[in-house]
Amino acid sequence: MSCFIDVLHESDFTIHNIPFAIISSSESQAPRAASAIGSYAIDLLALAQSGAFGKCSVLGNGVAARVFAEPTLNAFMALGRPAWREARAAIQAALSATGTSKLREDEELRQKVLLPLEKVKFHLPANIGDYTDFYASKEHATNVGVMFRGKENALMPNWVHLPVGYHGRASSVVVSGTSIRRPNGLTLNAETKLPEFKASRKLDYELEVAAYVGTGSKLGDSIAVGDAEEHIFGLSLMNDWSARDIQQYEYVPLGPFLGKNFGTTVSPWIVTLDALEPFRVAQPKQDPSPAAYLSAGSLDAYDVKLEVAIKPPTENTPPIVVSRSNLKYMYWSFKQMLAHHTVNGCNMRPGDLLGSGTISGPTPTSLGSLLELSKNGNEPFQLAPSVTRAFIEDGDEIVISGHCSKEVDGQRIRIGFGEARGVVVPAKSL
Amino acid sequence: MSCFIDVLHESDFTIHNIPFAIISSSESQAPRAASAIGSYAIDLLALAQSGAFGKCSVLGNGVAARVFAEPTLNAFMALGRPAWREARAAIQAALSATGTSKLREDEELRQKVLLPLEKVKFHLPANIGDYTDFYASKEHATNVGVMFRGKENALMPNWVHLPVGYHGRASSVVVSGTSIRRPNGLTLNAETKLPEFKASRKLDYELEVAAYVGTGSKLGDSIAVGDAEEHIFGLSLMNDWSARDIQQYEYVPLGPFLGKNFGTTVSPWIVTLDALEPFRVAQPKQDPSPAAYLSAGSLDAYDVKLEVAIKPPTENTPPIVVSRSNLKYMYWSFKQMLAHHTVNGCNMRPGDLLGSGTISGPTPTSLGSLLELSKNGNEPFQLAPSVTRAFIEDGDEIVISGHCSKEVDGQRIRIGFGEARGVVVPAKSL
Ligand SMILES: [Ca+2]
Ligand SMILES: [Ca+2]
Ligand SMILES: [Mg+2]
Ligand SMILES: [Mg+2]
Ligand code: NI
Repeated sequence: MSCFIDVLHESDFTIHNIPFAIISSSESQAPRAASAIGSYAIDLLALAQSGAFGKCSVLGNGVAARVFAEPTLNAFMALGRPAWREARAAIQAALSATGTSKLREDEELRQKVLLPLEKVKFHLPANIGDYTDFYASKEHATNVGVMFRGKENALMPNWVHLPVGYHGRASSVVVSGTSIRRPNGLTLNAETKLPEFKASRKLDYELEVAAYVGTGSKLGDSIAVGDAEEHIFGLSLMNDWSARDIQQYEYVPLGPFLGKNFGTTVSPWIVTLDALEPFRVAQPKQDPSPAAYLSAGSLDAYDVKLEVAIKPPTENTPPIVVSRSNLKYMYWSFKQMLAHHTVNGCNMRPGDLLGSGTISGPTPTSLGSLLELSKNGNEPFQLAPSVTRAFIEDGDEIVISGHCSKEVDGQRIRIGFGEARGVVVPAKSL
Repeated sequence: MSCFIDVLHESDFTIHNIPFAIISSSESQAPRAASAIGSYAIDLLALAQSGAFGKCSVLGNGVAARVFAEPTLNAFMALGRPAWREARAAIQAALSATGTSKLREDEELRQKVLLPLEKVKFHLPANIGDYTDFYASKEHATNVGVMFRGKENALMPNWVHLPVGYHGRASSVVVSGTSIRRPNGLTLNAETKLPEFKASRKLDYELEVAAYVGTGSKLGDSIAVGDAEEHIFGLSLMNDWSARDIQQYEYVPLGPFLGKNFGTTVSPWIVTLDALEPFRVAQPKQDPSPAAYLSAGSLDAYDVKLEVAIKPPTENTPPIVVSRSNLKYMYWSFKQMLAHHTVNGCNMRPGDLLGSGTISGPTPTSLGSLLELSKNGNEPFQLAPSVTRAFIEDGDEIVISGHCSKEVDGQRIRIGFGEARGVVVPAKSL
């Protein structure tokens, strides 16, 4: 596929990608749907109004202009995978260097549809009804377990039998670029054994990827694991900010609460499963075999290279990479998470968000949290010549990025997720 | 205050109450706001269109007709406590036996506004962005702790220092009358020590009261405990259905998930804090004193008599009362819960739901769950001459009700919450 717009080979937004987001611009401040190509956002409402989706079977007859005018992607998500597929194909056709394309031939239309990325503002891509976070990396669960319960009891017995998850807070999911205030809370004073109210001293990030539910399910029904991919709209980057000291004091017996719900950052772009298809790889071998309702093919992981970088406020450098991981390390697949989540009849709605849990790999350079990197703060590391870190300091910007790249038919293809970034601002004074 | 409509003294919906709900009717199928008086729902959209809120400072100028026409109460909630107060006062004035009342004098208007309760359909009163469940009854937390961890470790050390809570699932909160399907899931086989996939055999209810957030807060901000009541729209009954066997297998370390999220039933009516004001009583003494951000007055409990009844499918009787508890047993107040929930900057939105946790009292007849009543199934009890129960059986209907009653100036006043009811239907076959 060749594109009439020049796209750098290292761009996240090649014609093979076609991700979805919600944008606004100074010319048109109403949030609306967009895709991206190279250094441009593609205004999908303007593209729909030009008739580019007219021949689509679901999106024709004005449906595209209606759903792409919405301030969230929920209505588009609810249309189902055939609609997501034909949207991607129609956008690729409009961008193609060959064949019929009004966009390619009409200079005025191009001005309206193609907006320089640095000029658009991003909004949360969906109205997230419910956000659930899982715990699907065996390396991460083991690393954390060793620190808190010792090597013998690192993994709970249930961990290998089901994808452990918990409900998160939907209201505080924010789009990349939103600053995050350091939370205050009760933490244990190790000497007095009593709680103290203060600003968190163990503020951390968690490198995650999240799936958006596209089409939902009814209360009392389940989504079969074999059908689950049809319900998943696509994937985004996610930073599940975590205050380890608050979390540790509060989490027994009912799980994480104030240690997590002060903010969760998602990337603006959602990359569809269709775009990720060429990057499908084997998932880690599951031993013991899971229950039948969780049994799926083994090719359910995606080879997505992930990075975490920190930009300290004192250094005039680009963000400094502290970790390189990969989505393929996830022990449980998103298909399995969705099948598990609904096996009891729990209903899903378009826009629901499923976090992977922190994605750590097998090596010391692939750890997805500072908790693991600094061994719960006991081993601060060198970030720059004069900068060490154990946990996040005020003013630090955390940048998560991800991309896939692969040789296909002698040609290297690349797609990327953009970034999920956020600066930590000081706590409110007590 | 006297009402021109005859209201039975034992009615939940006296002129002292004026609760809020969302209804539809066969004549007008669009969901809209309602209140209640005696055996009638009050169509608030029709009442607003008659000009009954014309002199209100927030609800005047057509605002009442706009917010009461919405399919949820969220827009009304977002207007704030002055609007809730003037709405209640204007409705009471319209119902008054004295003074000017178009409703009282206009027979045709009464036909449009007053709809027999048995003819209206109830909908979920709010779009619930996030639902959080707490664990605020010391008796319940202790009873459960003794069963699972023994008498010495019954209460976790953090329990007396903060209102323990966890995020619940908003999508599966349903209005009273919705049937609940028995969930399937993984539970531990005690002999093999391996999980088995099957229908829950320990299906339970939890007697709870829930607060709806009225006005919200911004991410990064907190709601001070002294200001928290201004943010709470009102209270409803809630049944937090729980599958104890699924819950027990899954909940360590990240908390309840599939054991809870298959359904949560709320009553249609929300009783405002203003209506509850005469029933304010002292809350249990908090020892140790909580941190400053949780320190409030001690008159923050409400004397609300609560009942749980079970109607077995085999018996032709009214529901049989199995428990009588009271909201005043809550150790932590809703004010404290809201202050705690936001102290880290977690944002609230209108319509957010805060569950109390199971409300158990100090006696064997005031236990808020079957887990406690049957000692985790070990002591089945007699429900009717030929009926025993340890946990919920298929076809059982669980009915939660609640009311307040008190002598004020020589007159007994009573307000009630209506009911939260639900029938359990058999699990899907595996
Ligand atoms: Ca996480
Ligand atoms: Ca509960
Ligand atoms: Mg978070
Ligand atoms: Mg529940
Ligand atoms: Ni190509």
